[in-house]
Amino acid sequence: MLELYHYEPSANSMKPMLCLKEKGLEFVSHYIDLHSFEQHSPEFVRVNPNGQVPALIHDGAIITESTVINEYLEDVFPAVRLRPADPVARAHMRIWSKFVDEYFCPALSMLGWNLLVPGIVERLKKGEFDKLLERIPLKEQRDKWRTAATHSFTEEQLADSRRKVTVSIERMEKILEKSRWLAGAEYSLADVNSYSIVAAVPRLVPEAMNEQVAPRSREWLARMNERPAVKAALAMARQPMPGSGNANR
Amino acid sequence: MLELYHYEPSANSMKPMLCLKEKGLEFVSHYIDLHSFEQHSPEFVRVNPNGQVPALIHDGAIITESTVINEYLEDVFPAVRLRPADPVARAHMRIWSKFVDEYFCPALSMLGWNLLVPGIVERLKKGEFDKLLERIPLKEQRDKWRTAATHSFTEEQLADSRRKVTVSIERMEKILEKSRWLAGAEYSLADVNSYSIVAAVPRLVPEAMNEQVAPRSREWLARMNERPAVKAALAMARQPMPGSGNANR
Repeated sequence: MLELYHYEPSANSMKPMLCLKEKGLEFVSHYIDLHSFEQHSPEFVRVNPNGQVPALIHDGAIITESTVINEYLEDVFPAVRLRPADPVARAHMRIWSKFVDEYFCPALSMLGWNLLVPGIVERLKKGEFDKLLERIPLKEQRDKWRTAATHSFTEEQLADSRRKVTVSIERMEKILEKSRWLAGAEYSLADVNSYSIVAAVPRLVPEAMNEQVAPRSREWLARMNERPAVKAALAMARQPMPGSGNANR
Repeated sequence: MLELYHYEPSANSMKPMLCLKEKGLEFVSHYIDLHSFEQHSPEFVRVNPNGQVPALIHDGAIITESTVINEYLEDVFPAVRLRPADPVARAHMRIWSKFVDEYFCPALSMLGWNLLVPGIVERLKKGEFDKLLERIPLKEQRDKWRTAATHSFTEEQLADSRRKVTVSIERMEKILEKSRWLAGAEYSLADVNSYSIVAAVPRLVPEAMNEQVAPRSREWLARMNERPAVKAALAMARQPMPGSGNANR
């Protein structure tokens, strides 16, 4: 049996949700409400000690890290293939996914947190946020919540993140000049892993992805939005999703 | 034909060097002297536009990123297997390797750069460093060279890196409480990818890896140092290697 702990079909949660839908795999969905800090609850920390979604349980084994979950699904359920057969294309798939994890996503994430977290925290009663902070397992996550909640990302940090998102889309444009998908001629995990991140760019850094500077990335996003698996994953949304593929149509 | 562009058998260069030796694969070695900034030369930037070692060329195809290179070698030359057969163990191999790339290695790297780069830059003629900086392709690398050269990592940054190295070794100890190798009972790329990073800890953050706090990590390192492939890779060193396995014996 497959069980997925996830939030909305956005950011890192979307990566395995889309992969599961592409592969046509049934799974038990456990919705973890990040706005209610359920990811840091004792119940969920028993599943993932880092207190982060997504997390996959397969026949009792717990797999974390969205990029690794998708490689795992590929290892165990290869019938619908999302890793290119050609090993060089497969390397390109991993180089791009690594770039998304280490550079593109953290930059976009800072902008998203800066926009959304203050509103989430304002809804809490006085003193409640400090208690919630205390139970966050990772120091880095604790620091990020505190910084975002107090609007303390500096203008310099935010500008640097916008620059990095622009660099990321430029790199994507160069790849798409040569090939239809991000790891070559075949649709692959490089595309699956990028969808939710790229889909958020038009709202968070519009100047990085307008028709003039990023026509190929926009076409790629439009092609992604038409995929039945993307539509099926987005249909699992509980809340309206600004910045997702839905909002771009 | 396999060709590897690499520096000394340390840091990221060591990862594919050790993988190639474990698999018993012949390769043409191209030594890139980081102390002479050869990684930013126009010749090498044609191989890797990011100006970073290692880079593998296999029958004309260029593969970059040490972690991806090792997965590629596994895909193409699986005879000596370094990816566990069990998919859950394979996921653990990737989760650990990702943690090394995103958390452990950057923390250790800052401490290494802080120690070594000022000496490298002092040997240059006045004005030469600024010219060398200009040809570094990635802004992030340019910034890191400039900061390290001018001793400008703050005490707070250096202390945070030491803390992260300590957290990393603690995580390693917990894994090794349960299994002989870093992804379970089988020696795997999780171990290959960690060797050069862990081997540098006793010199750079000795308090993180003494006999009291990290007995299992020390045993793991001693076991690694006895492997013929590790010895063969270390034998490729051109310069004495403080902080490598050699220095720990």
